Amino acid sequence: MQNLKISAAFSIRRLPSYLHIIRNLRREGEKYILGAAIARELHLESIQVRKDLGITGIKGKPGKGYPAEVLVDAIEGFLGWNIPRDAIIAGVGNLGSALIGYEEFQLNGLNIVAGFDIDPEKIGAAIHGVPVLNTTTIAINVPLLHVKIAILTVPDIYAQDVSDTLVDAGINAIWNFTNTQLRVPSHVVVQNEDFSLGYDMLCIKMRSKRSLMVY
Amino acid sequence: MQNLKISAAFSIRRLPSYLHIIRNLRREGEKYILGAAIARELHLESIQVRKDLGITGIKGKPGKGYPAEVLVDAIEGFLGWNIPRDAIIAGVGNLGSALIGYEEFQLNGLNIVAGFDIDPEKIGAAIHGVPVLNTTTIAINVPLLHVKIAILTVPDIYAQDVSDTLVDAGINAIWNFTNTQLRVPSHVVVQNEDFSLGYDMLCIKMRSKRSLMVY
Repeated sequence: MQNLKISAAFSIRRLPSYLHIIRNLRREGEKYILGAAIARELHLESIQVRKDLGITGIKGKPGKGYPAEVLVDAIEGFLGWNIPRDAIIAGVGNLGSALIGYEEFQLNGLNIVAGFDIDPEKIGAAIHGVPVLNTTTIAINVPLLHVKIAILTVPDIYAQDVSDTLVDAGINAIWNFTNTQLRVPSHVVVQNEDFSLGYDMLCIKMRSKRSLMVY
Repeated sequence: MQNLKISAAFSIRRLPSYLHIIRNLRREGEKYILGAAIARELHLESIQVRKDLGITGIKGKPGKGYPAEVLVDAIEGFLGWNIPRDAIIAGVGNLGSALIGYEEFQLNGLNIVAGFDIDPEKIGAAIHGVPVLNTTTIAINVPLLHVKIAILTVPDIYAQDVSDTLVDAGINAIWNFTNTQLRVPSHVVVQNEDFSLGYDMLCIKMRSKRSLMVY
């Protein structure tokens, strides 16, 4: 039973990557997705992919694959991503502004309801329709907005302080775009974003293209 | 032999994730890294991690782990990331500006030498010391700069056009931050960046925290 639980948890962990690939293929016009195509992209065994996707309850047709639309809905439903969630964004600099304007988030049910910044020129303004509030009002406004998710895009040196303030205000999930390793209480989850990883992957692809290695 | 090649290629593919974790642990003050710690983070078997790290030639000490500093250098060296590489950035909006100012890139040897934009207010200016040139001069300036890597941060509707221009100008690696699936010749590598994936991972962590599942 313990093993079954762990195995299911691993499957869940892989589903976002599957969803990412399936969405891309669907965007390219594919109506059916072969488990083998996902497996190839992620360098997994096909049987692993079929097993993982099995937890959504959707079955593929032999030789044809999984119906893309249905599979996306099933994965999103299974993971609860069709539930809209509100978030605030702390730090409305270039990156914060770019994320506020990132339209894909709406597709994923992520709804940014307010930004916080210390710049007097930004406070009171709206970016892509999202109001910018004073960082000093986090303690008051976050509970008022009933928001539990924060996107952290402040300069590194402020990251821990702002994180502490957010957690005190009721935030329990932080998407951390800073390079600071945040210290948070155990009930808070942190997802660290690191752009370097994407560059690393680009280098790997360049390297493999040059050496014609079999990927 | 073929199998050996494929297996080594898989190992290489996992190294950026290892590097990411090792760097984070080192930033937290760890001098030695246990293979098991990496394995736990990525939900891999410890033996897989040891095997993958084996290709760098660095050996861990039983019970103590791998020397962090040496391991980072070895992985970077193995993958060629200690080689500085120049890149240009096409689209100097909020995201483009944020990436130009992202200091971690320098650590990875990524050096952004110019930005390109169509906004007359930006052309001729410098952002974090990086000059912004007119997008219409890509065909002339990219070959002059001897740059092979482009970061694409233009609005989605311009993505394919600008990508074509970049490839014609000699770019053979595109780090794509747009939501457009680029069509490129076979000699060009593309790394798609999708912020949604980070949000997906955050949701998974929130879900697992709530249900107290064993990860």
